[in-house]
Amino acid sequence: MGLKLKGIEYEYIEQDFKNKSPLLLQHNPIHKKVPVLIHNGKSVVESAIILEYIDQVWEGEGAPILPKDPYQRAIARFWAKFIDEKCVPPTRKALWSRRVEREKTANEAGEALKILESELKGKKFFGGDQVGYVDIFGCFIAYWLRTLDQVVGLDLFTQDKLPNLCRWADDLCDHSFIKENLPDKERLLARLHAHSQTTN
Amino acid sequence: MGLKLKGIEYEYIEQDFKNKSPLLLQHNPIHKKVPVLIHNGKSVVESAIILEYIDQVWEGEGAPILPKDPYQRAIARFWAKFIDEKCVPPTRKALWSRRVEREKTANEAGEALKILESELKGKKFFGGDQVGYVDIFGCFIAYWLRTLDQVVGLDLFTQDKLPNLCRWADDLCDHSFIKENLPDKERLLARLHAHSQTTN
Repeated sequence: MGLKLKGIEYEYIEQDFKNKSPLLLQHNPIHKKVPVLIHNGKSVVESAIILEYIDQVWEGEGAPILPKDPYQRAIARFWAKFIDEKCVPPTRKALWSRRVEREKTANEAGEALKILESELKGKKFFGGDQVGYVDIFGCFIAYWLRTLDQVVGLDLFTQDKLPNLCRWADDLCDHSFIKENLPDKERLLARLHAHSQTTN
Repeated sequence: MGLKLKGIEYEYIEQDFKNKSPLLLQHNPIHKKVPVLIHNGKSVVESAIILEYIDQVWEGEGAPILPKDPYQRAIARFWAKFIDEKCVPPTRKALWSRRVEREKTANEAGEALKILESELKGKKFFGGDQVGYVDIFGCFIAYWLRTLDQVVGLDLFTQDKLPNLCRWADDLCDHSFIKENLPDKERLLARLHAHSQTTN
């Protein structure tokens, strides 16, 4: 998504996690995870670090990912970290674990999402009128976790609980740069339904 | 430490965690934690974000905290994140928990520290000849956790297991900018001894 925002062409290589490619092991020997950006033969790993790298290397091109002002930049980094550390883990756990364990984390997830909800008040995107750094981090919530919530029926994301967040998620997933990079909804639903059957 | 590297004067306000100040709650309402940098009345929180902020705001002054080159910058961010997420939590857990639980995490800590050890081969500091971003992150390992290891006697940090890391920790804690910001060794030892008595 960062490269799309900058208008940079790239080749996307999908990984089979049951059979990780030699290319992945060579370029991310410590974590052995995606995403990895390979640029000029050098590898940059971890989502946040890749986005910062893209924003600096292609500084003048396309849309900025991070704001230029140091304070606004700190705020964007703060919210990206908040999503990554405080929202995603409990929400994922509440939605992905066995039914009996869901309740425990659902409250924690609800509280963290409420904080995001209030940050989005009066804003189209976290990045203001444009999609930026925090919104790209937020895709996992806006698309994967929200869809999983619908499958599981835990109702973490409802219009009455999180009106700003639901509106933001709709706008974000409908945004051209983002849309092109999201997996097909039918395939995702089938995959999530299959998982949810195993955890009931 | 970041402000010292830049040569910027500041006022340091210590917090009593049993009785958090209204100033802390006002400037970090979400996490209610230190460090918080208050600059021009605005607050910047979280160590990594504060260091990035200082490096950008006082770009031309003192020593750079992060390298300028985007790839070197990505590498520095990678190692800081590695220390923060993969080294500190298991090492802290192995050294700070009850004796019976220590063994479980000691192996995980040892493996992560060995990766740092190999990254330090042939280098004075993570930042090269100068102390930088990763070294500042590493202080918690080099001073607090290594001292705690001596108190607890778990021998995670020994010359034969981690010669580069021990040499780096000595150099780092002896570095003028760092030294001035570390708590007094005797006070730290007394505090750690007291804790260790409660967990045996």
